[in-house]
Amino acid sequence: MAAIITLITDFGTADGYVGEMKGVLLSRAPNAQLVDITHDVPPQDIERARLTLARVWRRFPSGTVHVVVVDPGVGSSRAALAVSSDERFVVGPDNGVLSPALFVAGARAVELQTPSTSSATFHGRDVFAPAAAALATGTPLDSLGRDAPSPIIHRTPEPVRGAGGSLHGQVIVVDRFGNGITNLVGLRGGTIELGELRIPIRHTYGEVLRGEAVAVIGSTGFIEIAIRDGDAAKVLGLRRGTEVTLARG
Amino acid sequence: MAAIITLITDFGTADGYVGEMKGVLLSRAPNAQLVDITHDVPPQDIERARLTLARVWRRFPSGTVHVVVVDPGVGSSRAALAVSSDERFVVGPDNGVLSPALFVAGARAVELQTPSTSSATFHGRDVFAPAAAALATGTPLDSLGRDAPSPIIHRTPEPVRGAGGSLHGQVIVVDRFGNGITNLVGLRGGTIELGELRIPIRHTYGEVLRGEAVAVIGSTGFIEIAIRDGDAAKVLGLRRGTEVTLARG
Amino acid sequence: MAAIITLITDFGTADGYVGEMKGVLLSRAPNAQLVDITHDVPPQDIERARLTLARVWRRFPSGTVHVVVVDPGVGSSRAALAVSSDERFVVGPDNGVLSPALFVAGARAVELQTPSTSSATFHGRDVFAPAAAALATGTPLDSLGRDAPSPIIHRTPEPVRGAGGSLHGQVIVVDRFGNGITNLVGLRGGTIELGELRIPIRHTYGEVLRGEAVAVIGSTGFIEIAIRDGDAAKVLGLRRGTEVTLARG
Repeated sequence: MAAIITLITDFGTADGYVGEMKGVLLSRAPNAQLVDITHDVPPQDIERARLTLARVWRRFPSGTVHVVVVDPGVGSSRAALAVSSDERFVVGPDNGVLSPALFVAGARAVELQTPSTSSATFHGRDVFAPAAAALATGTPLDSLGRDAPSPIIHRTPEPVRGAGGSLHGQVIVVDRFGNGITNLVGLRGGTIELGELRIPIRHTYGEVLRGEAVAVIGSTGFIEIAIRDGDAAKVLGLRRGTEVTLARG
Repeated sequence: MAAIITLITDFGTADGYVGEMKGVLLSRAPNAQLVDITHDVPPQDIERARLTLARVWRRFPSGTVHVVVVDPGVGSSRAALAVSSDERFVVGPDNGVLSPALFVAGARAVELQTPSTSSATFHGRDVFAPAAAALATGTPLDSLGRDAPSPIIHRTPEPVRGAGGSLHGQVIVVDRFGNGITNLVGLRGGTIELGELRIPIRHTYGEVLRGEAVAVIGSTGFIEIAIRDGDAAKVLGLRRGTEVTLARG
Repeated sequence: MAAIITLITDFGTADGYVGEMKGVLLSRAPNAQLVDITHDVPPQDIERARLTLARVWRRFPSGTVHVVVVDPGVGSSRAALAVSSDERFVVGPDNGVLSPALFVAGARAVELQTPSTSSATFHGRDVFAPAAAALATGTPLDSLGRDAPSPIIHRTPEPVRGAGGSLHGQVIVVDRFGNGITNLVGLRGGTIELGELRIPIRHTYGEVLRGEAVAVIGSTGFIEIAIRDGDAAKVLGLRRGTEVTLARG
């Protein structure tokens, strides 16, 4: 079966940068199945790319190679990594984007060499795509570089315990629908406090009236703040870092 | 030959929701060929998704599975459907998006069960992708659920006959180019009336001067209102529902 | 091995036009591997499509078919072309978008016939996709049409020599990151003059402070003007055609 190579970038598609990467991948791994995850990560938003990778990487079959290129430090001394973790591979810059695969027990990371012919501004094409194609065609991780001793790992901030069993958390990301996804693990029956507002935690959006705020346990287990048939980010002013509290009962 | 699975969603791509669905699909149907139709349906715009499905579903080979996830009622009591129609399959919520395949003679629909482990907010990943993968790998439709007695079917509104053989119709959708696609079947030689404006029906955009309004018979047989080398929606104020009249001669 | 067919369009995806093309392609070339380069070329921007094709077309393996549909003259008398060049094929309208493949030595172009059943507004579906599928399945170029005697070729403007060895060039395209890509071939050690501003040419973005302007040799060998961790187009007012000068030393 053909290996799967997925792509997460902040390149958009109109400039052809992603197209160049796909050409390199298919020239070196002609049987690979290319899968676009996204090219619409906001430019240079490492945190958003990290969260997207976290969502998807283990949903794919064993042997899948995930390439993540959100790389504001390209051409600087930041390392380039290939990582083996939980039977899958991730490839990208050492700036935190690969964290979801790095903090898994048994993960192994090697530091990729930059070929002397590489451009200084486009390692997606000249460093990461060639490494991904090599892994997809069976090249062992070890032959791609030396062990990377301490890759950069970013973690989602943990909530902090407050009075009366409450938990102080924050919005981690606002999604396309304007829902604010928090770092609070969901338990039904509680209430979310957002400033003066108290938002009930319900099973689905449909349990409140149109235009009302509701909190639900989202698809990764974390509490999301939404407006039924509306945009919570706009209506409630949610953005990354907005503080929210989970009050019991 | 590998089955084709196509995707129509309003998820955008940056959040990774589509990536999760692709991972589920390829884990369960490893030989499937995934085809992105669009992830840029405006959020929760059932009508736009319906029209996009209408355009594409029969262009694909027999056996293709089309997954449509525009699903504002996710988690509510709305049913989840898998449909067999004209040698193809469509999978998605029972809210009208699947209409183009449902009103074909011989279409059969079954109601998908929601697994107890399903999230309440993401049936694309937990209900529709597994059903699509099952169909793509040869699982019979009947084994996916019981007959759905009366799925919701939306139809494009019909034009109304007026005086002197005229037809009163409307703009059904405005496309990326700002063209207004109407529900009026094209016949050359007529004129489109838009308020006080009379727009000639021509064979191609190029038969009027730059910046002038023109009506042409579009690629699905319906009359489209355009501005040559311009954006008719902006210039003429076209939007979904704008009333237009087809006058003979 | 399955032939690769890539797509460059200005269709966006939401309207389903690209989906229709993919359906036609897979119906006629069921084993083809479809690769999205981009559907986000700005509407009717021939020049941007030309530059995107230039970046990608030779990165793909021999036998790849590239379809480019940015086609403001659809339905007019402009010709439709299929081109064989450097072991690859390109298919699209005769309006300059195919130039990168046309000015290569040994390129051969034929003029595609428009089937009588073709719509007047969507040759992507009715002319170009069928031709691409034919080439992908081994149909010889010559059987698709007669030699096209003099296809339209657009070239990137050449810089002009000025006093003291300087070169007067211009910004050719602004990319998603706001970087201005010029027509000046890079040589380190020089300076870019942009109005009153003098911008040093460095190896990487990281060699200046955050928010400072820098010029680097980009991934195709041309000088790019950037703002470190910023958007040069916004900050410096760069756009297509902005004049820049390369001063030696």
